[in-house]
Amino acid sequence: VQVLPLYLVGTGLVGGTLLDQMAGQRRELADRHSIRIELVGLADSRFMKLDNAGIPMDRWRESLESGAKSDLATFVDVMKSARLPYACFCDCTASDSVASRYEEILESSIAVVTPNKKANSGSMERYRNLAAVARNSGAAYRYETTVGAGLPVIGPIRDMVSSGDRIMRIEAALSGSVGFILSGLAADRSFSALVREASKKGFTEPDPREDLSARDIARKALILARESGFSPEFEDIAIDPLVPGAWFEARSVADFYTALEREDATYERKRVEAASRGAFLRYVATIHGDGSASISMREAGQGDPFHALSGPDNMIVITSERYRERPLVVQGPGAGAEVTAAGVFADILHTII
Amino acid sequence: VQVLPLYLVGTGLVGGTLLDQMAGQRRELADRHSIRIELVGLADSRFMKLDNAGIPMDRWRESLESGAKSDLATFVDVMKSARLPYACFCDCTASDSVASRYEEILESSIAVVTPNKKANSGSMERYRNLAAVARNSGAAYRYETTVGAGLPVIGPIRDMVSSGDRIMRIEAALSGSVGFILSGLAADRSFSALVREASKKGFTEPDPREDLSARDIARKALILARESGFSPEFEDIAIDPLVPGAWFEARSVADFYTALEREDATYERKRVEAASRGAFLRYVATIHGDGSASISMREAGQGDPFHALSGPDNMIVITSERYRERPLVVQGPGAGAEVTAAGVFADILHTII
Repeated sequence: VQVLPLYLVGTGLVGGTLLDQMAGQRRELADRHSIRIELVGLADSRFMKLDNAGIPMDRWRESLESGAKSDLATFVDVMKSARLPYACFCDCTASDSVASRYEEILESSIAVVTPNKKANSGSMERYRNLAAVARNSGAAYRYETTVGAGLPVIGPIRDMVSSGDRIMRIEAALSGSVGFILSGLAADRSFSALVREASKKGFTEPDPREDLSARDIARKALILARESGFSPEFEDIAIDPLVPGAWFEARSVADFYTALEREDATYERKRVEAASRGAFLRYVATIHGDGSASISMREAGQGDPFHALSGPDNMIVITSERYRERPLVVQGPGAGAEVTAAGVFADILHTII
Repeated sequence: VQVLPLYLVGTGLVGGTLLDQMAGQRRELADRHSIRIELVGLADSRFMKLDNAGIPMDRWRESLESGAKSDLATFVDVMKSARLPYACFCDCTASDSVASRYEEILESSIAVVTPNKKANSGSMERYRNLAAVARNSGAAYRYETTVGAGLPVIGPIRDMVSSGDRIMRIEAALSGSVGFILSGLAADRSFSALVREASKKGFTEPDPREDLSARDIARKALILARESGFSPEFEDIAIDPLVPGAWFEARSVADFYTALEREDATYERKRVEAASRGAFLRYVATIHGDGSASISMREAGQGDPFHALSGPDNMIVITSERYRERPLVVQGPGAGAEVTAAGVFADILHTII
């Protein structure tokens, strides 16, 4: 049996679900893959627990609360000096201060697995550094779930690039909340009502302007462009936001909704215009063949892969030299604790298999 | 630089394209991944060449023809006794006699990579044996391209299963030729004319009945079912063939076309009936949640993922416990030398990264 010592930071929705999934899969991993994942470090923003003898995954909450006051620097120092073979550091936070530790962790030959977009959507220099450090140290650095959650996206792009294919274009619908809103538009379902509904269903951030600003989409597009071999910075992405920038200055969320309602007629007109051409409105990020990237609303008519998209699904359409006439298309839920945690789980296993 | 010694058998369309792709990617692999693939063995049905010093990939044809008379037993023996670390055996034939060697090769801790379906679509016992031998020896056994060519299918299913997800249903359009024929049906394009056209375009086997019999689709469905954790045998797959079984007994391909033309009206009636419901005809393999599998023609109406399928594209729709409400969908070309070779290339790299 191969032991995989795991250090996990972040026990929110994704981290907690991951711990449950790993606990439930213990027997299977031993029997079918001869692997035992040993949780040797666990931390959230309040507590941390480090124990080389293993923290029980089915009682991680109690264990953690019996731990010390959380301190990331100490956590990383203890992990680095333990030098456990095949160790893996998993960051299930959305924190930049955790992401800023990846470099020294990889340098210590400890694998890093994360759904946290912060590191790879920072500066291109930082992205390049992390890739170089991982390559030189031989430690795995995996982040499949930063785009499309559990959907296979980054892996397939890497496989294409490393086998000598050239990415010519990627088009992607990368926001479940925006997808839900745009595909829900109908004569009796206004834009503002759909934003409210998406917010109520938990599809959006507490302030839905976070979703509508496309900043999160841009971070994902940035990662897709970089994995495709291009070198854009965040500022290079031309964002045509779904709602006018001025609306972000409305003071409260309530004020924002009032502004939004006044524009419902505009969205309805766009929807009707699209419908008259047999098309739907979609919000699509595009990585162009010259490495530039843009995000904007567009009509998707019959024959356009995005025509078939519905609800909160993500869709990633990859056109390359080898997939030139017919692109490679991946579609499915691109968010959610279960599928994200499952993707992180698979990434952890792939650090050793 | 990590050296990956490669033994390649089969230099037809896929094997030849793979050699070209690897030759073209030499510099990139060294610079970006610190990997050098060293071709140390090459064989086709006529010649073989074994050389630990390396066979030049850009002049493999001349090298091979200067080699000895091909003999698989000798090839395998030399490979096994060379004991080169990180060695990989790649089978680009469609031969069962090559596939029957995988077990002893894996036992010698040599990785096996192949687009050849023969081994995994044989008996369940053989499938299980190979998986067990690979697990026990620690040698990679990769065959992503046996289903959907370069499309990410087997990898994602494995990731789902190993992270504890449960496959509830897989629906898949797995034949480019059948997809081309069915999606091409129109008032002025008959079934028989489309079979002829598919044959002319090289989408079918020389005898198009091979494609229409669904035997190749069944082999792929069998692999999908087994990767999903089920244990069917080939005979367990309920095939509802696209053309009546009796037609396979027509003596010549010409006789077959004559029989086919007499039935064009039947297909046209089915197409019109489907169209009256806003649906298209698709030929879909289904793995059910109880492990049973069936292949049959069905109508795909609005809202059905197969509605959007077109031309020779494959489509794989995976519903699982975690992808229950919205399935994971992969679509794209599921055949072709370039994309298949690229998938094999990626599998070879994954034996060490």
